[in-house]
Amino acid sequence: MTELWLVGIGTGNPDHLTLQGQRALREAATVLIPRKGAAKEDLAEVRHEILRRAGAEAQVVPFDMPVRDENLPYQERVARWHDAIADRWIAALDGAPEGPVALLVWGDPGLYDSTLRIAERLSGEVKVKVFPGVTALQALTAAHAIPFNTVNGAVMVTTGRRLRDHGWPAGAETVVVMLDGECSFQQIDPKGISIWWGGFLGMPEQVLEAGPLAETSARIVATRAEARARHGWIMDTYLMRKDERG
Amino acid sequence: MTELWLVGIGTGNPDHLTLQGQRALREAATVLIPRKGAAKEDLAEVRHEILRRAGAEAQVVPFDMPVRDENLPYQERVARWHDAIADRWIAALDGAPEGPVALLVWGDPGLYDSTLRIAERLSGEVKVKVFPGVTALQALTAAHAIPFNTVNGAVMVTTGRRLRDHGWPAGAETVVVMLDGECSFQQIDPKGISIWWGGFLGMPEQVLEAGPLAETSARIVATRAEARARHGWIMDTYLMRKDERG
Ligand SMILES: C[S@@+](CC[C@H](N)C(=O)[O-])C[C@H]1O[C@@H](n2cnc3c(N)ncnc32)[C@H](O)[C@@H]1O
Ligand SMILES: C[S@@+](CC[C@H](N)C(=O)[O-])C[C@H]1O[C@@H](n2cnc3c(N)ncnc32)[C@H](O)[C@@H]1O
Repeated sequence: MTELWLVGIGTGNPDHLTLQGQRALREAATVLIPRKGAAKEDLAEVRHEILRRAGAEAQVVPFDMPVRDENLPYQERVARWHDAIADRWIAALDGAPEGPVALLVWGDPGLYDSTLRIAERLSGEVKVKVFPGVTALQALTAAHAIPFNTVNGAVMVTTGRRLRDHGWPAGAETVVVMLDGECSFQQIDPKGISIWWGGFLGMPEQVLEAGPLAETSARIVATRAEARARHGWIMDTYLMRKDERG
Repeated sequence: MTELWLVGIGTGNPDHLTLQGQRALREAATVLIPRKGAAKEDLAEVRHEILRRAGAEAQVVPFDMPVRDENLPYQERVARWHDAIADRWIAALDGAPEGPVALLVWGDPGLYDSTLRIAERLSGEVKVKVFPGVTALQALTAAHAIPFNTVNGAVMVTTGRRLRDHGWPAGAETVVVMLDGECSFQQIDPKGISIWWGGFLGMPEQVLEAGPLAETSARIVATRAEARARHGWIMDTYLMRKDERG
């Protein structure tokens, strides 16, 4: 059975790849790479740089990402889209050399990423192996040189949408937010809360802001808008913590 | 000002080190390594293996870990202990060559680790830089080839003690537990919950168990006790998820 290797590559700094991940890319017979739109050119560039540095000699097989059917309800739209991606993988692999097939996955393959769910659809045909990677969460706390958690404290990892819908999660001293296109920290009562924010973490374009949420919120919104306008897109994430006294 | 580099090394597999981490160990002038008791010999062995593979030529400076004063209340005991460790670092660095000082930190330096808090105590004397690492959480989900989160779902990262004290955290589909010496999953109503457990993740001794919590709980307790007896110690972590139907 063909092995499908999901290799976590970190979140923008090619040197965040692990030694194990680098070896996997070197040993793979084929590397499947999505052909993306020009807006995400930077991401494609990081992937090629990683392969170059790894000295990968695998056959690089590009595949076109299918388009989502916007007429379907959300759950079904995503499910059909994943089906379609799985089909593209199969088509792309037709005629590929024998041996392991690698996919480069942004950050860690387990964290807010659909690659594992798509791979499940091929479960009769491939054997999946996951190579862990540094996530945007570690890139964030490293850039700010802060701990992820308070001593013995809990951390809620969540999305912008959930933060908007449910507010500050019960029982968490720390909340980390990903997939937030709307600066949802603005929806939270800022009293007693500090924020550490990062955009383009690990990349030359990296931007950081931190401080009490009340004073920092507007600055992040402005910095984010400016960075986004300059590059045409942005990826950002942030950690919020209740002050010990708060 | 001396640079203090906190280098995340992953959780047992020396190949989980990042390329950036490896370069840092190669460029450091000094590496500070704790002299630990024999029970944790395996951990010391991983550290030396990592340095060897990195081709590190740094001066390796060992320091003795101070003992905790068990007569103090918990918070104060930990604070005094961190003070004492900071003092040992300073003493150990006396006469060290000029240049960056590296500390190898298990997993990622931000996640349930006191190194950053100890380093804060030297804030007038050193400049701290953090190199992110693969955490036990990524090692766990990679070993089981499972996603960390459900689609758009939240994940609570917590400790065994908190799980015992507070039960299943409100608003989380997924709960990840670290620092649990007591198999605290036994305290949870297992109905509709699945568990993925791992001990010695990334190491040759790695053990995995997974299944519905009701059926798997006793097996994990037995596997853990057996592995612990065999090696004299154990590190384990687990992820629990509410079944979509549950
Ligand atoms: C689809 S998720 C993928 C996460 C990835 N698998 C990981 O392990 O970090 C994308 C989200 O991750 C965060 N993210 C990824 N890379 C980032 C970066 N370089 N800087 C800031 N945030 C990033 C953002 O919140 C973004 O919305
Ligand atoms: C003091 S914390 C350090 C965590 C580390 N900084 C990280 O990023 O994973 C130690 C806890 O991490 C988990 N852990 C660390 N290494 C592990 C391994 N190899 N296998 C299983 N659990 C591990 C266990 O839950 C253990 O109690």
